[in-house]
Amino acid sequence: MLIAVAFRPAGTTGTEPAHIRTRGLWGWRAAMADETAGLAEALRRQADTVRRLKQEKASPEVVAEQVARLLELKAQLGAEEGKPKFVLKTPKGTRDYNPKQMAIREKVFDIIISTFKRHGAEVIDTPVFELKETLTGKYGEDSKLIYDLKDQGGELLSLRYDLTVPFARYLAMNKITNIKRYHIAKVYRRDNPAMTRGRYREFYQCDFDIAGQFDPMIPDAECLKILHEILSGLQIGDFLIKVNDRRILDGMFAVCGVPDSKFRTICSTVDKLDKVTWEEVKNEMVGEKGLSSETADRIGEYVLLHDGLGLIEQLLQDPKLSQNKLAREGLEDMKLLFEYLTLFGIADKISFDLSLARGLDYYTGVIYEAVLLQPQNAHVEEPVSVGSVAGGGRYDGLVGMFDPKGRKVPCVGVSIGIERIFSIMEQKVEASEEKVRTTETQVLVAAAQKKLLEERLKLISELWDSGIKAEMLYKKNPKLLNQLQYCEDTGIPLVAIIGEQELKDGVVKLRVVATREEVDVRRENLTEEIKRRTCQP
Amino acid sequence: MLIAVAFRPAGTTGTEPAHIRTRGLWGWRAAMADETAGLAEALRRQADTVRRLKQEKASPEVVAEQVARLLELKAQLGAEEGKPKFVLKTPKGTRDYNPKQMAIREKVFDIIISTFKRHGAEVIDTPVFELKETLTGKYGEDSKLIYDLKDQGGELLSLRYDLTVPFARYLAMNKITNIKRYHIAKVYRRDNPAMTRGRYREFYQCDFDIAGQFDPMIPDAECLKILHEILSGLQIGDFLIKVNDRRILDGMFAVCGVPDSKFRTICSTVDKLDKVTWEEVKNEMVGEKGLSSETADRIGEYVLLHDGLGLIEQLLQDPKLSQNKLAREGLEDMKLLFEYLTLFGIADKISFDLSLARGLDYYTGVIYEAVLLQPQNAHVEEPVSVGSVAGGGRYDGLVGMFDPKGRKVPCVGVSIGIERIFSIMEQKVEASEEKVRTTETQVLVAAAQKKLLEERLKLISELWDSGIKAEMLYKKNPKLLNQLQYCEDTGIPLVAIIGEQELKDGVVKLRVVATREEVDVRRENLTEEIKRRTCQP
Repeated sequence: MLIAVAFRPAGTTGTEPAHIRTRGLWGWRAAMADETAGLAEALRRQADTVRRLKQEKASPEVVAEQVARLLELKAQLGAEEGKPKFVLKTPKGTRDYNPKQMAIREKVFDIIISTFKRHGAEVIDTPVFELKETLTGKYGEDSKLIYDLKDQGGELLSLRYDLTVPFARYLAMNKITNIKRYHIAKVYRRDNPAMTRGRYREFYQCDFDIAGQFDPMIPDAECLKILHEILSGLQIGDFLIKVNDRRILDGMFAVCGVPDSKFRTICSTVDKLDKVTWEEVKNEMVGEKGLSSETADRIGEYVLLHDGLGLIEQLLQDPKLSQNKLAREGLEDMKLLFEYLTLFGIADKISFDLSLARGLDYYTGVIYEAVLLQPQNAHVEEPVSVGSVAGGGRYDGLVGMFDPKGRKVPCVGVSIGIERIFSIMEQKVEASEEKVRTTETQVLVAAAQKKLLEERLKLISELWDSGIKAEMLYKKNPKLLNQLQYCEDTGIPLVAIIGEQELKDGVVKLRVVATREEVDVRRENLTEEIKRRTCQP
Repeated sequence: MLIAVAFRPAGTTGTEPAHIRTRGLWGWRAAMADETAGLAEALRRQADTVRRLKQEKASPEVVAEQVARLLELKAQLGAEEGKPKFVLKTPKGTRDYNPKQMAIREKVFDIIISTFKRHGAEVIDTPVFELKETLTGKYGEDSKLIYDLKDQGGELLSLRYDLTVPFARYLAMNKITNIKRYHIAKVYRRDNPAMTRGRYREFYQCDFDIAGQFDPMIPDAECLKILHEILSGLQIGDFLIKVNDRRILDGMFAVCGVPDSKFRTICSTVDKLDKVTWEEVKNEMVGEKGLSSETADRIGEYVLLHDGLGLIEQLLQDPKLSQNKLAREGLEDMKLLFEYLTLFGIADKISFDLSLARGLDYYTGVIYEAVLLQPQNAHVEEPVSVGSVAGGGRYDGLVGMFDPKGRKVPCVGVSIGIERIFSIMEQKVEASEEKVRTTETQVLVAAAQKKLLEERLKLISELWDSGIKAEMLYKKNPKLLNQLQYCEDTGIPLVAIIGEQELKDGVVKLRVVATREEVDVRRENLTEEIKRRTCQP
């Protein structure tokens, strides 16, 4: 996968020198511009870094980012010297997909889409940008990460930040009150990229949502079943799905003494528990958000709890929590959810976790998040550090924000974050040294002698017209050896060889690349023979 | 397809009142804002328009645009009255795809992708935006249609305008000199949308390109073969592929007396010949571009010629043209191309047409464009006016524009414009009243009595786990009639019904929706039986 090296754009990964990490890449760049003389020196140091990383056999992704930075420095220096100014790269936080990466991506999509279809989902698509006002007020503090388009006259537009808000806009606009749909598309966030860990500014989301007024927890349980099927199907290692309910959180905040107005912001703080310690979370609650130390401690007692049915029963007995209407509703529903998950046979992978809060504002009921528990494969040298790979929950108020009359459409959904899964799958493929084919070509049309271009064109045209996937070399007189080598390189399993004699006899010599076996096949039987030999067993 | 009505955004279609057409929608809006009292009147008139169009059974697309405008006026009036200000719509020139439209889109993509794969193409993907400078200087006059992103700090970005320039950037960046790839993705142009004719601001391109140094016209002929296979496969009616060569055009301009510096701009003018008369083209050449009337007339004699091999021979004899090196090279290659097209059996659909010029600057050799010749289907009341549905050509200099050392990678490719094809396919489906299924669900799990939710959950879980596409209603106690009706509505062919008796007997009642036939199947055989009954014949 060395082909990927040259085109990964720069980002901050934690492996760069401290002055870059602390000042940020852009600050550092600006400083560089001031001291032009420093550029050559920076270039030399960066070249050293790349050389060292290669010697140390650092992971291709790490090397790629450093090479990208090296190229950028070179271009910058070139610009100073009057050479072409532009940098040959993709925008920060984005990447191209080469054919090998696409092959892996298609495999992942196949598993996800077939699961969505197995659950009867329809599919929709929406534009990559929305009116800016459609996104306004939906993402809380994260709104600053939205990409806006330039005002070139006309409407003010923004790139979509997720697929959930466009879905809610779609439902409200078309007055749809009942749909089960999936949507797979790229979304955009001006976040700090960490591409070695699969965090990009342009990335795919694979969303499945159920909209409609139904009996409690049945669609919610199906979303978790789908998540379980997909994570099992991908075979990327053991996983755990944490669940909680915004109503339980809110009830808990209430009984701990958090004022109503601070529920959402305290929720954001609790959400950091998977990344930082309780001490830090408590400091934020008390120092930044203004809770009393006692209130924070009371929250602390709850959020460290996680378990299954047992914990639900325990909390239903909790003298304070059980008196709170919201919390009780949430707990009763959680109990029902676990009953359904048990019927689905997946309760063992689900953990009721009071520390799960989720960042987004719009959730109103059950929430969940899937995390991978360990490196997927003992053969991989450097386990990828991956956090959450999927999340979701119930958002019963979002569609109503778009409806002129505020009519609500209850919704629940799950979103799979594909880039982290790609990172893992790519490493897995690399580690296994499995050869990934990037085409499906069944046969190469080849000539044994010169001056047979016309005959090759005629034969390949016949094959294409009968549905065979066929290639030929774009040379008038290619050498047979080169034609066979092409098959070895690209994994084409068969060669259809014509020569003077074969043309006279009305046959084609069919060669099996792997075994070098050759057999004459009558021209009229060639299509059938190729199909027979290349169909899946 | 009435579901589509409410969400098509507004554009100018030629059917609106003259004062809108002449002043433009935005000017008209601004004027309206000045005279608030006029809004209510405009709203009333627009409502009349919609009512009239519906009575006259105007095409759904036309109605949709007028309804969108009506909604916009309503929202505007609402804003004046202090109601929520925002308009519930997609950005101008874009649309959502509902599940029915997605089903058609997937069918079209299947045909196109399987053709690309049949010709041994790999697939790549690139980000939706590029560095602004990557797109600079590649599109000539059309550059003004590029969408820029807002400068939010960091790099200056633009949405991609086509897939060809990102492909060239990808090749140069990764130093790839040899690849055959396809790429299907949305591109963005701030053009004047005409959505009833399939012209959008966000639209798909399906590109196939061959990069590398090969013997002349072999890859070029394959691109035309692919185009022929796709347009035949789509069954959207008769078509013609026009071909020409930039070298022949340049040679022709030279012998007619056009100065070198005006080749590209005169090329743009000639390109308008498929939309306006020769008189108008001549006027532009003489009036705007400064050619003499005689030069224009000499061009006129050539560009009206179109034919196959005969014309090539005739021009090779042309006393002036045959003396021009570029033109002679182009003509010799054109002759070779037609030989290969004849071997492929597709020469009858290809017309050598001296009036074909193509808009984009970067072509250097053979160019082509496919047009549909007639409405695809006599049953359609209003034939869609469609022009070009695909185009492409050879661009040997583009990759070199990105390479720091100017190294060239010869390329030739074809791009299919999908939106126009969608428009035709949608009309065709509507005309045929064919019922389009939007899910693949094989069976609905239903209960004949109350209190069987747990049993339904257990059964559906078994089915999902063995790969069956299954749904159930999200109700605790749905009526059997409602469950059967759901199958009728959505086209689910089978119902697996459980009741007390079936559970006791260890069977499931399998009902065929179409025939109402019912048969008891032992539970352990259910998966097999469903697979047997729903597999493709």
